[in-house]
Formats: sequence, C-alpha cells, structure tokens
Amino acid sequence: MTTTPDAAALAAALPELQQAYAELQAKGLKLDLTRGKPSAQQLDLSNALLTLPGTDVTRDDAGTDVRNYGGLEGLPQLRRIFAELLDVPVEQLLAGGNASLTLMHDTLAYAALFGFPASPKPWAREEKVRWICAVPGYDRHFAICEALGFEMITVPMTEDGPDAAAIAELVADDPTIKGVWVVPAYSNPDGAVITEEVARALVSMPTAAPDFRIIWDNAYALHHLTDDEVTTPNAIGLAAEAGNPDRVVMVASTSKITFAGAGVSFWASSPANVAWFTKHLAIATIGPDKVNQLRHALFFGSADGVREHMRKHREILAPKFEAVVEILEARLGKYDVASWTAPRGGYFVSLDVVPGTASRVVQLAKEAGIALTPAGATYPHGRDPENRNIRLAPSMPPLTEVREAMDGVATCVLLAAAEAGSA
Amino acid sequence: MTTTPDAAALAAALPELQQAYAELQAKGLKLDLTRGKPSAQQLDLSNALLTLPGTDVTRDDAGTDVRNYGGLEGLPQLRRIFAELLDVPVEQLLAGGNASLTLMHDTLAYAALFGFPASPKPWAREEKVRWICAVPGYDRHFAICEALGFEMITVPMTEDGPDAAAIAELVADDPTIKGVWVVPAYSNPDGAVITEEVARALVSMPTAAPDFRIIWDNAYALHHLTDDEVTTPNAIGLAAEAGNPDRVVMVASTSKITFAGAGVSFWASSPANVAWFTKHLAIATIGPDKVNQLRHALFFGSADGVREHMRKHREILAPKFEAVVEILEARLGKYDVASWTAPRGGYFVSLDVVPGTASRVVQLAKEAGIALTPAGATYPHGRDPENRNIRLAPSMPPLTEVREAMDGVATCVLLAAAEAGSA
Repeated sequence: MTTTPDAAALAAALPELQQAYAELQAKGLKLDLTRGKPSAQQLDLSNALLTLPGTDVTRDDAGTDVRNYGGLEGLPQLRRIFAELLDVPVEQLLAGGNASLTLMHDTLAYAALFGFPASPKPWAREEKVRWICAVPGYDRHFAICEALGFEMITVPMTEDGPDAAAIAELVADDPTIKGVWVVPAYSNPDGAVITEEVARALVSMPTAAPDFRIIWDNAYALHHLTDDEVTTPNAIGLAAEAGNPDRVVMVASTSKITFAGAGVSFWASSPANVAWFTKHLAIATIGPDKVNQLRHALFFGSADGVREHMRKHREILAPKFEAVVEILEARLGKYDVASWTAPRGGYFVSLDVVPGTASRVVQLAKEAGIALTPAGATYPHGRDPENRNIRLAPSMPPLTEVREAMDGVATCVLLAAAEAGSA
Repeated sequence: MTTTPDAAALAAALPELQQAYAELQAKGLKLDLTRGKPSAQQLDLSNALLTLPGTDVTRDDAGTDVRNYGGLEGLPQLRRIFAELLDVPVEQLLAGGNASLTLMHDTLAYAALFGFPASPKPWAREEKVRWICAVPGYDRHFAICEALGFEMITVPMTEDGPDAAAIAELVADDPTIKGVWVVPAYSNPDGAVITEEVARALVSMPTAAPDFRIIWDNAYALHHLTDDEVTTPNAIGLAAEAGNPDRVVMVASTSKITFAGAGVSFWASSPANVAWFTKHLAIATIGPDKVNQLRHALFFGSADGVREHMRKHREILAPKFEAVVEILEARLGKYDVASWTAPRGGYFVSLDVVPGTASRVVQLAKEAGIALTPAGATYPHGRDPENRNIRLAPSMPPLTEVREAMDGVATCVLLAAAEAGSA
C-alpha cells in the first residue's frame, strides 16, 4: 500500500518528472482509456451478424415468425444457449433488448413504481430507500440509485466479493435497506471473483426488508483473460436453497461478446419474480427484437459456440491487460506510490495512487492527451473519499496505444506523487 | 345507428340465424382478427433487412462505428429520414428501439418517478393523477394509465379527433388532469383523422396543470389505404406557436412499416423535453441499437423510399379493408343493427353492434373459431359502458380468410341482435 514517505522521497525528483511530463505533453497524444468499450478488432469477430439471419430466414427453430410482434420472454432458441451458460433453468431466463443496463434500471424502476410482491408499498412511496454499494464499483449502478433517490451506503469490495459480514450487519435491522449490487465475476473495476461462501452468506442472511434484492450483474461471466476460467456460484439456486428464492435478480448481456450497442440481454430470477417482471414488461413493450435474438442464436449455435467465441476476445484483450500490468510494474514497481490489480477477466485494471492525488493524475493525463475515467467515478456520486482510485480501461485502443497511454499514465502518477510529496 | 326495433324485427328470424350459426360452427374455422399485426406477405416486403447492413458494413455516413456503445439520440442518418416524414426538426427527433410503446411508457414512467421540469412534484407523489382518453381508443394506452394508477376520464372520439371542447372544459380548472392520448392519423379503432382546428384547440387551451401533456401517438402517419393520403397537423410546431412548446410529445415507429417486432421507434418534442427525456434515458440505456437503425436507413434510403414502401403495404392491405366493408354492407346493410367505419388508413375497422351485444358477438365468433378483440377492449379497463364496440383487425389473415371471417362475424352480429330482440 501507499505511504506518503515515498511520495515525499519522490519530491526530490520533481524537476526531472516535470521535464518528463513536458516531453509527454509534447508528443501530442490523443488516447482514450475511459470506458470498457470493445475495440474494432473485437467487434469484427462478430461481423457475421451483419448479414444474419440471412436471406429469407424468418423463423426460429420452433417455427415462430421472428419478424412479427410477440414473445415477451424472448426467443427460446437463444434462451436455451444462455440458460446453459448462466446456469439457470431456461423458464427462469428472459431474453431482452440491447442492454442489461436497461433491465437493471427497469427492475428498480418497477420496484419504485409498483413494488415487488413482498413490498409493503411501492418504493417511491417509502420515506427512504437505501441501497448497498461495494466500492470501488460501477458508476452506472450508482447512477441508477442516484436517479431513483436511493441513498447509497458503501461497504468495502474484497478479493472475494462484497464484504458480506459488513452487509449482513447493515441489513439485519434496517428495513429501509432494500438491496445490494453484486458483480460476481471480474468485478468492475477490481476484477474480484465472488466465492461460494460470500454468495451463500448474501443469499441467506436475514434482512429486515421483506423485499431485499441482490442485483447480480453477471456482466463478465464469460470474459476470461487467463486459463483460470472462473465459474461463479449459482446465486439463484443458492437463494432458493436458503429459503429466499426471490432475493436474486441476475442480468447479463452480449454487449462485450458480440456488438456493444446491438447485442442481446438476459434477465433471470425465481419463477415468482419472472411473473412479476413480465407482468410489468407487458405494459411497456410488444416484445424484444426477436430478429436480433435469432441472429445471435444462429451466430453462436450453442453454448460451446459462445465459449469458443470468447477465447477469440481473450486473444485480443489479454495482451493489452498484460501490457498495462507490465508497464505499471516497470515504471512504478520501485516506488511505494501505487498499487494495481492484475485481473483474470473482465474489462478493467483498478489503480490506487497516492491518496489525494487521483484527480490530479487524471487532470495531468488529460492535459497530455490521455483520457481516463474521471477520478471518483468508482464511488457513489463520483466522490472517492480518499481521492485515490482510478479505473483503467485498456480494451478499446490498439496495443501500441495502450502501451503509450500507460507509460504516460505512469509519468502522471509519479509527478502527482512528487507534487504531493513536496507540498 | 342501431335501434332496437330492428333487433326485435330480427327476432322472428332467430331459428334461421341459429341454423346459419350452426353451419358456421360446422366449418371448424380457425381465424384471427384480434390484433393489428402485419401479415407475412407484408413482412416479406422488408426481407432485405435480413441481410443488412451487409458484409463488413460497420459505419454510418458520418463514420460512426454502429456496432459500439453510444449515440443516445439515435443514428442521425435515420433521424433525418423520419424528421422529414414526421415534419419535425431533426434535432428534436430521437430514434429508439423496437417499440414506440416503450417510449410512451417510459415518458410517463419518468413523469411518475421524476416529473417534467414544470411539474410541482413527481406524478407518483401526487394524490391523484387523471388522464383523458378519447373512446373508443387503443387498449395499450389505457393499460399504461391503469398500471401507473392514472384515473382515466373518457371523452368522445369524433371524426375530427378527440372532442376538443369537452377536453378544454375538463382541463381548465382541474390540475390533477395531466394529459391526453391522441392518435392523430387513422385513429385506433375509428380511423379518425385529426383536423388542424382540433389540433390547434388542444395545443392552445389553458390547462390548470402546468405540466399537461399530449401524447401524440403518430402510429399510422404513413399508413394510407386510399389515394387520399392525409397529412396531419404539425402539433409540436403548433404548440410552440401557441406558447405551449412543451405540451406535445410525439412518437412513431416502423412496426407497421418494416418488421413489427424488429423495427425502430421515434420520439419528438420541444428542445426542453428532449433534454429532459435524454437525461433520464442516459441512466437507463447505453444507446439504441444503431446497427438496426443503420439497417433501416440503408433499406429506405430516403423519405421517398419510405413513402414508396408504404404503397406496397397499401396494395396488400386495401383489398382486405374493402372486403370487410363490402361484406358488412352486403350482410348487415339491410338491417338496422350495426354501423361501421370505412377507414382511409390505419389498421382497424370499428364496428358498433346492437348495444348490449358486443360481448355476445365476440363469444359467438369465438365458439365458431373466429378470434376477435375482446369486447370492451377499446374502452378503459376493458369496459364499454354500452357493450357495443368491436375492433376488427383484418391485416394479418390472407384475403380469403378475411372474407370468410367477416361473413362469420356478420352471422354472429345478426344472431346476437335476434337473441336480444327476442329477449
């Protein structure tokens, strides 16, 4: 971990670092590590979708005309493939539109407007709704809470998932706490993988709120970067075993499998929750885009087809992540000014710099033409109390640019540390 | 209009009609006139979409990679085409996913959760929200109101659109009345076309609610059945002229232009409302499916491409609507037991039968293998106070089946009238 002495020690090198930074600025870079976007090379892997489902292919394997209205639950042919991959019964899995973000938002919007079956009242009518966020975490999760007026309570993210003991203590007596976000596999940004022990704790802990929900955002379930292809616990099954069948709502998507903006999404939960969700969905939609769902089913063919496809992503992505870690190690390893993750999957490297300097690092990088995710983005309301965490997203630029950008980021981290040390 | 004497007069023919009905049942039909679905033949008109955007076509005409995240407002290349067709400035028009229903739902859900900028509070926090529905009308509009807890107030639908004088009187003093549905072109089910006079009245009338909204559901703007291709007033422009720029929210879609379940949708309003809607949309989505939007832009090419395409729909649809009207006239014209519309566009024929018998007609039809929209569906909560209106949707079945179904429906209308007359 960071200690100020080493930032102080760096203070002596301030003039050299300022010179290095001036040289960095002189390069006139224009690089972007802000968001977890797939690169064009990754998107190309799915270009077969651009001419699918194919000339006069209008029906799925059950004979349904995919062009017309209907089929609220999504195309069975596609749901079967992802039911296997996500380890849920197909009848508990819905296939939706192009974003699991929309499914998460709508789940909580329906809770606000109508409540879950077990809710004493619609959440929008509660005096206060609180929601647990493990930090660092995903900014779009926080944005949904903020928009819906949920007060966010933070708990630490650990290597094994959210701090289950801290959560259990919070929810035991406080009925205003209605839920928690969990990114079970390769969490955003820490790359943590939840253990079965943590999962069991979360699905079985007593909660004061009768309608407590875990939004199990399985965004990176299949997004391995190493041979250690982790599997995450089947939270929906574990919750049912624990006598809390309705506690878990899982979402996933192909946004980082096929096309980021034109994929398909998935929503899974208990049969009672599926009935609840589809009841409200039926008011808002005429059914998902089944042509796009068929396009995906034909493209993949099977669950193994998806797994095989993900290995092609890994071939493109893994070198970029290795480069990030390698450069951080080479440039910063000898100082005690930063720590970082070496993720086994997902889309992010989480970088902790000298406390108080994250926003300065991001500013320095910006002024040198390297766009980083805003400091604080991994905390509710964009406020990192220690101003320390930076989320690095190396997927989008080509490998040479990732290297160039990371070398620049390292310079900025050192300069900010030296500035802090000499202040 | 219907008068009971003629139903009474028919009573004498009850045995013959019962015999005719028995023969109808003996045919073992299986026909469906329930919903306004395009037929397979119509869907085939857009089959080029099944292989678009085409091999390695990944960018729109501005160079944007349509496969990746982003572009909340929708693809400019597509928005330009529909801005011309819908007569709104392109910067006030958003392109969305596969359903304008979703856009209508989300507009009102955001109003419930957050309120419009001019709202004293989020609508979900109001003691009561009321909404005006012209009847007969569209069941999915009513379902949204019902789900959100809006109390529905009915006004008559006229040939020129909703009864503007009745609406103006209602809204002048009652701040709980927050809006009205309008289907300006070829209304569902009556086929009414709003006049500029009615439109001007609606956009300029004083309303007690500062956040009163007209949801201008332009579902059938381009869906002509005759050479009399009506144009509907530019409500957004007229509202701005009248000093109420934020009053109108327009939606439209290609659900009945390309693929019913895999089209694109549009949302248009004032600049202030666009800012409001996109602010909330940004929490819920990573942007619409731009690949599908490019697919559509390439398929149409231009606004004229859309107009030309709609003429092909008309060639398929017009004979079906002519058949409905012709058979109703031939079978029922000599009796005073029913009246019906002869629409110039849209997807429905509205049939009024002997008051009190609509549900009986639907039941008789069902038992003869002809599925009709449930009686009452064109009224809030599915309750037609006169039990008189039936919505006929002849688009889906082939022409021969439309003829067979309508002949059966006519028998059911007569039998139900005779039963009522002899009761």
